[in-house]
Amino acid sequence: MKKNLLLSLLFINSVAVFAQTKDEQVFKEIYKSALTNSKCYSWLDHLSNEVGSRLSGSVGAEKAVQYTKQQMETLGFDKVYLQEVMVPKWVRGEKETAYIQDNSTKIKVPICALGGSIATPKNGLTAEVIEVHSFEEMKALGVDKIKGKIVFYNRPMDNAEIESFDAYSGANEQRYAGAKEASKMGAVATIVRSLSLRLDDFPHTGSQSYGDIPKAQYIPTAAISTNGAELLSKTLKSNPKLKFYFKQSCKQFEDVLSYNVVGEIKGSEHPENIMVVGGHLDSWDLADGSHDDGAGVVQSMEVMNIFNTIKYKPKNTLRVVLFMNEENGLRGGSKYEELSLANKENHIFALESDAGGFTPRGFFLECDDANFTKIAGWKNVFEPYLIHSFVKGHAGSDIGPLTGQTLVKAGLKPDSQRYFDYHHAANDKFDAIDKRELELGAGTMAALLYMIDQNGVVKQNP
Amino acid sequence: MKKNLLLSLLFINSVAVFAQTKDEQVFKEIYKSALTNSKCYSWLDHLSNEVGSRLSGSVGAEKAVQYTKQQMETLGFDKVYLQEVMVPKWVRGEKETAYIQDNSTKIKVPICALGGSIATPKNGLTAEVIEVHSFEEMKALGVDKIKGKIVFYNRPMDNAEIESFDAYSGANEQRYAGAKEASKMGAVATIVRSLSLRLDDFPHTGSQSYGDIPKAQYIPTAAISTNGAELLSKTLKSNPKLKFYFKQSCKQFEDVLSYNVVGEIKGSEHPENIMVVGGHLDSWDLADGSHDDGAGVVQSMEVMNIFNTIKYKPKNTLRVVLFMNEENGLRGGSKYEELSLANKENHIFALESDAGGFTPRGFFLECDDANFTKIAGWKNVFEPYLIHSFVKGHAGSDIGPLTGQTLVKAGLKPDSQRYFDYHHAANDKFDAIDKRELELGAGTMAALLYMIDQNGVVKQNP
Repeated sequence: MKKNLLLSLLFINSVAVFAQTKDEQVFKEIYKSALTNSKCYSWLDHLSNEVGSRLSGSVGAEKAVQYTKQQMETLGFDKVYLQEVMVPKWVRGEKETAYIQDNSTKIKVPICALGGSIATPKNGLTAEVIEVHSFEEMKALGVDKIKGKIVFYNRPMDNAEIESFDAYSGANEQRYAGAKEASKMGAVATIVRSLSLRLDDFPHTGSQSYGDIPKAQYIPTAAISTNGAELLSKTLKSNPKLKFYFKQSCKQFEDVLSYNVVGEIKGSEHPENIMVVGGHLDSWDLADGSHDDGAGVVQSMEVMNIFNTIKYKPKNTLRVVLFMNEENGLRGGSKYEELSLANKENHIFALESDAGGFTPRGFFLECDDANFTKIAGWKNVFEPYLIHSFVKGHAGSDIGPLTGQTLVKAGLKPDSQRYFDYHHAANDKFDAIDKRELELGAGTMAALLYMIDQNGVVKQNP
Repeated sequence: MKKNLLLSLLFINSVAVFAQTKDEQVFKEIYKSALTNSKCYSWLDHLSNEVGSRLSGSVGAEKAVQYTKQQMETLGFDKVYLQEVMVPKWVRGEKETAYIQDNSTKIKVPICALGGSIATPKNGLTAEVIEVHSFEEMKALGVDKIKGKIVFYNRPMDNAEIESFDAYSGANEQRYAGAKEASKMGAVATIVRSLSLRLDDFPHTGSQSYGDIPKAQYIPTAAISTNGAELLSKTLKSNPKLKFYFKQSCKQFEDVLSYNVVGEIKGSEHPENIMVVGGHLDSWDLADGSHDDGAGVVQSMEVMNIFNTIKYKPKNTLRVVLFMNEENGLRGGSKYEELSLANKENHIFALESDAGGFTPRGFFLECDDANFTKIAGWKNVFEPYLIHSFVKGHAGSDIGPLTGQTLVKAGLKPDSQRYFDYHHAANDKFDAIDKRELELGAGTMAALLYMIDQNGVVKQNP
């Protein structure tokens, strides 16, 4: 009995060692393929430099659907198809203008309308400005001090945060809900400090929502560059009566038809189990959206290219999904889940890349403790590739709506220090992408999908 | 007795917990200071944009000595002083020109002389080209095939390496010793593929050595951009008889006087024990040297600024040393060691930053196993700052000559993916620096110095 136990232990041990060695070998092939044989950088070159910006409902978004579908069709999927989805169409119109009117001096400052904002009156809007740093501060000032004014939200992202996404979370309510809250207090408009950790001249757009306030109470809202915010704040100190002028002509249209792009290869052993990897195809309109989220799109496609190169056939069904409309509606992610429910599909894993094409550091995991422990247990296989950070956290917006009894969600976690230098701004362009950093991200995604495919997920408590 | 043991254990445990908590608190202050109150970015702005390139013996190098000395004098050191050091002076002269002569077609390609190279004849040099990928390949070809030709070293850095420094190590003998080896075979010149993982139009300079071959056998040597190398290789395939023309007018002058810049604060408990932190003040001449090694210089100075901000007085003597002439002679590092020996100084720790101002990931450690284990044991305090990689490896060239019976050496290990995009090339400029990444590096250096200062080093076996 004792001898049998010993033999069993030896057997179990050698199986584990064998698996480990095999995984190490596959990882080597995956990363080698990513770094020496990838297509993601040239795909992104096209997406950024030929297609350009891809706001939902725009010509760019339509071109991106066609281009990525066509490229996916070269990758040996069992099928590549489009999922119809109705998306909001918001158009910026002509370039915004703004200036600080300090007595007789006009000082131009860079602004941009926030996504979903209404326009100013045709000739622009002029009003006094009141600077606040939180909703609480604004509410404490009272309606009398806010009414008729432009509320200037100037709480910076906190530079002391190590992870820039934490700094973002600490400030972005000003952008998302600032207009709604200020309108309730009688403000005529809001100007929001751009969500960036740098001092520069780029205004950063992004979505905002009027929530449930009546349409008649919608007020125009724009972002001002961080340098512009500093200047406005400083000028306000010397002249609290200064006026701010801005003009924007953005407009919300009726919803239009667009698409998620899906490539699918049936699993060789468990075709009923689906693994999704994706990013979002739409971008903001001020630049190419190379980091947000061109990178995630081409990295997701690259996973299939890597599996082809190393001749890896997934046991579970693999879908590469390029979601439409993450930025201002999340309609693509919602539609994907709607169809998944209708088709009674069983998703076991969803991986998103939507945090920039920077050097990968690890994963954000959305799952129970059992799955977290299991995945974090693979750390040592990832370590030679400098992947070290396995943390619980938000995996991705597009895979947010997805549900499933045994579903584990993960988000690629790249180095985040430079992300908000570019996020939603005119400098989020192809030249801000480093080829190797992008490729290492794709390799890391392929490696995690390989491990999930080989080892499955732990059935979670319902 | 048992009770006493338990109490002792409880006491030891609470001391450890107390130390841990205290370290965590100090780390918090260090990183907060680095990210919200640092001067390193503006120092680097001046060093890059006002002083500019700082090749040993140049006006830029002299200005850099004066500027950093003056800035160090504002940081509350006990003394700031210069160490005289004679340095080589090599001057590039007018911009190099080169073209491929493919039958009647001339195709211009970007080249730059390698540091220490001789000039071509005044009107340039034209010869047939032979492409090789290693010294072995060249030697196997034999003198007959090499004699009278330009040897074109075209072994690329290996993209499959995860750490770019490993890819560099695998290719840089072509640059450093290529001319010497080719001269022995009768070549008239060498052209070396630039040491970069990117395909672009920047030639990358760097030092080369003729070793001990007679002066009469020195041949001119230059680097060609990676795109240029690809083109030359391709053209050679269709026309092995093509000729290559290049012209460079670089010159070696007599050695000149320069300086290391040193700031010193006496230790409050062990003034006889010295901790050094530094980078090198000289740079190559094609750009500002913002990453190599302006970053290391200002990060080292920032350590003192951080200690001032958090009011930390080191127990051991702390020296910030800005070394001269790392790039083409290492005279500053050698002089520092020479003076240290003459003054019978006792160095316990030396930390260098010379791998770029990118997001810090960990440290390269040069020490015995006992010290490695001790330092790697601090991983958990560093982890919240995403510092995870503690590896044995080359700590830094400037601290290379330094000796000491109880000396531990460390090098800051930043993310290395982008380093060779800029290394020794015309794009190593201030706009390639991210402020937060630079600051996080400085914080990480201060944090390690704090730990060494608090905990000492293990006396190593002689």
